[in-house]
Amino acid sequence: MPDAADFARLDHRRADRTGEPEVVYGEHKPPAEVAALLAALLTGGSSPVLATRCSPAHAAAAPEAHYDSAARLLVARRADPVDLGTVVIACAGTSDLPVAREAVGTLDAFGVSTDVIADVGVAGVHRVLAETDRLAAARICIVVAGMEAALPTVVAGLVSCPVIGVPTSVGYGTAFEGLAALLGMLTACAPGISVVNMDNGFGAAMVARRILRAGG
Amino acid sequence: MPDAADFARLDHRRADRTGEPEVVYGEHKPPAEVAALLAALLTGGSSPVLATRCSPAHAAAAPEAHYDSAARLLVARRADPVDLGTVVIACAGTSDLPVAREAVGTLDAFGVSTDVIADVGVAGVHRVLAETDRLAAARICIVVAGMEAALPTVVAGLVSCPVIGVPTSVGYGTAFEGLAALLGMLTACAPGISVVNMDNGFGAAMVARRILRAGG
Amino acid sequence: MPDAADFARLDHRRADRTGEPEVVYGEHKPPAEVAALLAALLTGGSSPVLATRCSPAHAAAAPEAHYDSAARLLVARRADPVDLGTVVIACAGTSDLPVAREAVGTLDAFGVSTDVIADVGVAGVHRVLAETDRLAAARICIVVAGMEAALPTVVAGLVSCPVIGVPTSVGYGTAFEGLAALLGMLTACAPGISVVNMDNGFGAAMVARRILRAGG
Amino acid sequence: MPDAADFARLDHRRADRTGEPEVVYGEHKPPAEVAALLAALLTGGSSPVLATRCSPAHAAAAPEAHYDSAARLLVARRADPVDLGTVVIACAGTSDLPVAREAVGTLDAFGVSTDVIADVGVAGVHRVLAETDRLAAARICIVVAGMEAALPTVVAGLVSCPVIGVPTSVGYGTAFEGLAALLGMLTACAPGISVVNMDNGFGAAMVARRILRAGG
Amino acid sequence: MPDAADFARLDHRRADRTGEPEVVYGEHKPPAEVAALLAALLTGGSSPVLATRCSPAHAAAAPEAHYDSAARLLVARRADPVDLGTVVIACAGTSDLPVAREAVGTLDAFGVSTDVIADVGVAGVHRVLAETDRLAAARICIVVAGMEAALPTVVAGLVSCPVIGVPTSVGYGTAFEGLAALLGMLTACAPGISVVNMDNGFGAAMVARRILRAGG
Amino acid sequence: MPDAADFARLDHRRADRTGEPEVVYGEHKPPAEVAALLAALLTGGSSPVLATRCSPAHAAAAPEAHYDSAARLLVARRADPVDLGTVVIACAGTSDLPVAREAVGTLDAFGVSTDVIADVGVAGVHRVLAETDRLAAARICIVVAGMEAALPTVVAGLVSCPVIGVPTSVGYGTAFEGLAALLGMLTACAPGISVVNMDNGFGAAMVARRILRAGG
Amino acid sequence: MPDAADFARLDHRRADRTGEPEVVYGEHKPPAEVAALLAALLTGGSSPVLATRCSPAHAAAAPEAHYDSAARLLVARRADPVDLGTVVIACAGTSDLPVAREAVGTLDAFGVSTDVIADVGVAGVHRVLAETDRLAAARICIVVAGMEAALPTVVAGLVSCPVIGVPTSVGYGTAFEGLAALLGMLTACAPGISVVNMDNGFGAAMVARRILRAGG
Amino acid sequence: MPDAADFARLDHRRADRTGEPEVVYGEHKPPAEVAALLAALLTGGSSPVLATRCSPAHAAAAPEAHYDSAARLLVARRADPVDLGTVVIACAGTSDLPVAREAVGTLDAFGVSTDVIADVGVAGVHRVLAETDRLAAARICIVVAGMEAALPTVVAGLVSCPVIGVPTSVGYGTAFEGLAALLGMLTACAPGISVVNMDNGFGAAMVARRILRAGG
Repeated sequence: MPDAADFARLDHRRADRTGEPEVVYGEHKPPAEVAALLAALLTGGSSPVLATRCSPAHAAAAPEAHYDSAARLLVARRADPVDLGTVVIACAGTSDLPVAREAVGTLDAFGVSTDVIADVGVAGVHRVLAETDRLAAARICIVVAGMEAALPTVVAGLVSCPVIGVPTSVGYGTAFEGLAALLGMLTACAPGISVVNMDNGFGAAMVARRILRAGG
Repeated sequence: MPDAADFARLDHRRADRTGEPEVVYGEHKPPAEVAALLAALLTGGSSPVLATRCSPAHAAAAPEAHYDSAARLLVARRADPVDLGTVVIACAGTSDLPVAREAVGTLDAFGVSTDVIADVGVAGVHRVLAETDRLAAARICIVVAGMEAALPTVVAGLVSCPVIGVPTSVGYGTAFEGLAALLGMLTACAPGISVVNMDNGFGAAMVARRILRAGG
Repeated sequence: MPDAADFARLDHRRADRTGEPEVVYGEHKPPAEVAALLAALLTGGSSPVLATRCSPAHAAAAPEAHYDSAARLLVARRADPVDLGTVVIACAGTSDLPVAREAVGTLDAFGVSTDVIADVGVAGVHRVLAETDRLAAARICIVVAGMEAALPTVVAGLVSCPVIGVPTSVGYGTAFEGLAALLGMLTACAPGISVVNMDNGFGAAMVARRILRAGG
Repeated sequence: MPDAADFARLDHRRADRTGEPEVVYGEHKPPAEVAALLAALLTGGSSPVLATRCSPAHAAAAPEAHYDSAARLLVARRADPVDLGTVVIACAGTSDLPVAREAVGTLDAFGVSTDVIADVGVAGVHRVLAETDRLAAARICIVVAGMEAALPTVVAGLVSCPVIGVPTSVGYGTAFEGLAALLGMLTACAPGISVVNMDNGFGAAMVARRILRAGG
Repeated sequence: MPDAADFARLDHRRADRTGEPEVVYGEHKPPAEVAALLAALLTGGSSPVLATRCSPAHAAAAPEAHYDSAARLLVARRADPVDLGTVVIACAGTSDLPVAREAVGTLDAFGVSTDVIADVGVAGVHRVLAETDRLAAARICIVVAGMEAALPTVVAGLVSCPVIGVPTSVGYGTAFEGLAALLGMLTACAPGISVVNMDNGFGAAMVARRILRAGG
Repeated sequence: MPDAADFARLDHRRADRTGEPEVVYGEHKPPAEVAALLAALLTGGSSPVLATRCSPAHAAAAPEAHYDSAARLLVARRADPVDLGTVVIACAGTSDLPVAREAVGTLDAFGVSTDVIADVGVAGVHRVLAETDRLAAARICIVVAGMEAALPTVVAGLVSCPVIGVPTSVGYGTAFEGLAALLGMLTACAPGISVVNMDNGFGAAMVARRILRAGG
Repeated sequence: MPDAADFARLDHRRADRTGEPEVVYGEHKPPAEVAALLAALLTGGSSPVLATRCSPAHAAAAPEAHYDSAARLLVARRADPVDLGTVVIACAGTSDLPVAREAVGTLDAFGVSTDVIADVGVAGVHRVLAETDRLAAARICIVVAGMEAALPTVVAGLVSCPVIGVPTSVGYGTAFEGLAALLGMLTACAPGISVVNMDNGFGAAMVARRILRAGG
Repeated sequence: MPDAADFARLDHRRADRTGEPEVVYGEHKPPAEVAALLAALLTGGSSPVLATRCSPAHAAAAPEAHYDSAARLLVARRADPVDLGTVVIACAGTSDLPVAREAVGTLDAFGVSTDVIADVGVAGVHRVLAETDRLAAARICIVVAGMEAALPTVVAGLVSCPVIGVPTSVGYGTAFEGLAALLGMLTACAPGISVVNMDNGFGAAMVARRILRAGG
């Protein structure tokens, strides 16, 4: 295993400034590099220690870390639970679940509790209306949706908490790998919605955690 | 006034083949040309006789025609009313009304009855749910929406009739002059929706009329 | 086989509202999930029961369903035939046939009769003109075309029924995976055309069925 | 002045659900319509009552409202101040100030206190570093930037609170009216950033307010 | 009037190499500059001498030249007629006529005879079929069309001569200022079509002239 | 081998109208289908008989046809040589050769003689200038180039014959799979250039053949 | 005149770090603001003091500065001449001259000598070859071109010095306001070319000055 | 091994004109062709002799050349070291290293010394500030960054030398394979930055070498 100091510049003081340790972005990186970075972060005392967008090959190179294959997350250390309220993660279709799981897995690694409301796309709007109570109990809603991505607008009109939209690359043709969903969320006619990159469940979780702490 | 025969080739047998007379597309055309085309269609016996996307200057050049400035329609002859059921035109915001009015004005010229349900965007989804009865009474729904254009999906999940989506150029930034709305409608996750060009209220009306006649 | 209730929220009352049961979108879903969803829909009494965009692996996981590999459809229950007239599916080239077959297979599962007119692209316009009688007998035309997608315009000028355009991803270079065809259909200069997503033969069939029922 | 009830469907119960009254989107609307909507909201007891993207003509039609021409806001009623901490609005260049002012004016109307840090683009990164203390005192940072929009990334690496990015349409050529800035913010390599539509200072303010209340 | 030699570098030997004199591109150029360039070309003996995309202001600055306002051409010297056969210019709609006229005016200035077949869009395909004889008599067809631009494909399937497609910016929404037409022509499924820039009637004429001379 | 009549509609009278037989587009088609179409065209007497964009699997299914793997052409019958002058095919880089070879192979099948001038990109402009004599001898120049595609402009400034530009998908990044080359050719500042789709060597050859015959 | 300190944060130590004073970007800024910024920079001792993209209204507000209307530059203080060799600015067409002049005016304000070679587009490649000596004498070439922007490639193949490409928005249709030129320059097949934003003559000049100083 | 003279036109006088030998672009070329080209360049006396974008298969075909698999470079002859100062290559993340290595390997083949500063993305801006001395010692900075690509702006504000930006295709979603980074660099608000194509480390190195020689 290579030494992370040979190729990377870990930002050990990031947690002091931002309250978050460095997180490893696994995609594009050789498995041995990801393993070395996780090892260095473990040694450096980061909490939690995780890597995103990891393949089974990454997981094999870091056997001490827990691998969530649906979320593509490698978690080498979990933070202690925090009592900051619940983040609801709503997703429009079952195909959006992997992205939702990345958000759940990230929040879980940071000790934040979550509640997943799956398969409530607005083609059957009664499904989401039936969950009004769970939505109302959220301190934050992360809404994961592909295709026309109408769910964040409907949710933001039902709740008073912030809504973080995560467009997904689910779909074909004019879904344009999530672009239709992204544009839809950015032009949503309900206030209170902000957006992260396509399929970026991790990013949504990090925004959610900052919001929770902002309220502390 | 120039003679339409000098510059155009009116398709006098179109109505025989398709059940629709030629309609004048006013944009890009000088007012005198539009007036000449309307005159030729009147003489030729077309019914109705109308021109779309007309400015006040067009209207001034064809004083015998009725001008609907909101819809930008010039109607020189109205067809007799037909008994084909009602077309509901739902629109998401008040800014979408001009496009809705183009659809209404076109159907009206063809003698088809309409029912407009305005300002029922899904940011307050209870507004559209409150109109379920009117929606259910429709033989066709034309749904006009800009921005993220979530309304057709919600409507198509509430009714059993065909839904024709009309994306509008309302909005700014990533609305991209209706592109976001168009992509949203084309990727709608509810079945039964087909789509026409941005701001094309006229086109939606013509599709609706063909559908009504198909059921005859 | 997992239980569909564990990961999905089947909309059992959709048929009451919209006249259509839920249909499974196979792409992106693991075969066992598709099989579980089909099983749940069968149990729930839906009719028909089908899944779109299925691979042979999906078919292998649901051996009791009939698999149409060209159309990529899995049909687990077929609806009774209905007497709503014939839907003509015209396609421009032989490469467009798989999309046409998805439309045909879907309508067939819903009990609607179809008539396929293949390989009538407008580069040899006499071919489509020779089929004027079959076109005129249609209550609806679904027109499937890639590349410049001129066929819907020509067809819409020959018939009086609604035309549903399905752009296909056939072609290369500036075909841009169906975008050229889509833009062409949306800007078609003949009235009476509405459009669905690229390669969405299923969607066109569902629009057609709603139109047929609207005429009932 | 027309009666708002004749053309709009005010969502009087929105505040109950979401904690926010309806806000009028002035662009595309005739001045008399905006004035009528403000009057109806005043009568209905909304607080605050404001309209965004208003021109001087809108202001002239609603003389009782206060007009902020830089922010293009019309404020007809201001809410009582709330004690939710301070929102810092940082902007990269002086050309981004109008968008920043829309955010400030909106938060002000809702009674939220703000602190503007202007002209701290990263071409002279020492300028933003010199404001570390003011940034650290923020409960939320709204970062307004056009062109390459690097400021949100730098800020998010300096603070622990949520960062809301607002891309602006400042620039020319490959700025593509804010698209470059938008893409930059969505791909920012620092966690904790979410994004709203181009030039949408109002939207950022509404997200900020929801975040503040989520922490209450 | 400034001296062209002060700001331009006329390529006096171009005609020797390519058989074509320099032609002035008027757009973006001050009227006095266009006038000076025309004067220099007249003095230099070029034949013909013309400028494209000229406004009435350009025409006023060069009163000795003939101005065709529809085609936006300034012709200061006409070439002698040549006997190279006829170029047919077919256009889909009356709104495409200005572009057709730029092609006609350019060929006319070069002494080439033309035959214009206007308003034969394929929405009424019988119109173009009725002109089969005139089309068959062409040595070259220039086909001018906006929107979905299906006409070149149909024409190329009817004739044996080369077809030059000119997409026009006529239309709105997804016409995208001629992009839909351009993509359609480039993906045309009939062989024998090549394409020039949007609205480039001049360019099509120059290609046509080279083709005619190639056959000499 | 299936029977072509079962799935295709061969346009046997195309040669009468256009002087060209049908040509099979191999991409997207199963090998057996291509073989059946070639067999039907052979039986029908077409000359030449060829299929484009064929893989080795296509070639294996049609063993009696000659396969040019670089050009991806299957030629089942060659036409007699015609005496129409020489088509020069110039290409900018060695990576553009496969597309050039598709043009050469097509013209060869039609009996037209060609002259290939390879690797004369304008980064070393002396290379193309050194070939001025061969270029001047051409009745038509097909210019094949990727990346910035400057070669057609330079060539069109050196010769008096028509120039057909073929953008190629060679390159990476902002080459955007040939889009940069396409846009460059369409905006070329030299007259006499028309353009076909990316990588469409076949299409350029067909345009060239029509031009040659137009001159006959 | 407002005080610049009230709205801007002048980076007075920029020259220490980068060798360049701040330069005012005039577009989007009210004239009084530009005037105030120039005054502050003059007082602060910057040299030179200039503002880019200024309209006549800006010039009127800062009467002590020299206004170059073609280049849209306001120069309030000129730096002393430096002896760093000559920058050649070559431009393809006369319509590109305003952008070339912005580069010239900027270098002039910084005391750098320039040599402009105008109207040497590659449609007549002999024109640029005739200037080989002047090009060879350059320490840097700035090449300004719109449309297909082939000139930088040709120049970079003739000289050994760095070439800075400036795409311009000259052209129409597929020129896409400079995008075609930009893509062309970025994919140029000659080494030694780097690129700045569309129409950014100022930016090219600043790069050139840094290069000259790097060689000091 | 084929003979390069059979398919290519090596520009043996390029070094005389431009100071650079031809370099082989390996992508799209068969291994035997690359080997033949390298052999011809070695024989012709070029120095250095290298090929870019080579796969292991290319390396296997040219066993005498040194293969740098990270940089994908094949170096068959190295030039003598030159004393032109140091080029700093800074990269934002470890995923950008392969592109940085292509720049380093190219400069190394040309005998130019380099200094790599890795993993200094602006999410932790203190990392790049900590390297101010190494940056200040550079005669040129090549800055390699993907995603939002903010690093060139920050670096250009810290140094006085030219900055060459290399956008990389690292990232997902709205990174659009480097497009976000490219747009960001082109609109950078710091002067002194010019840009090359995505992932074009080789191109940046060639620009750097020309700059160094310009200063000689």
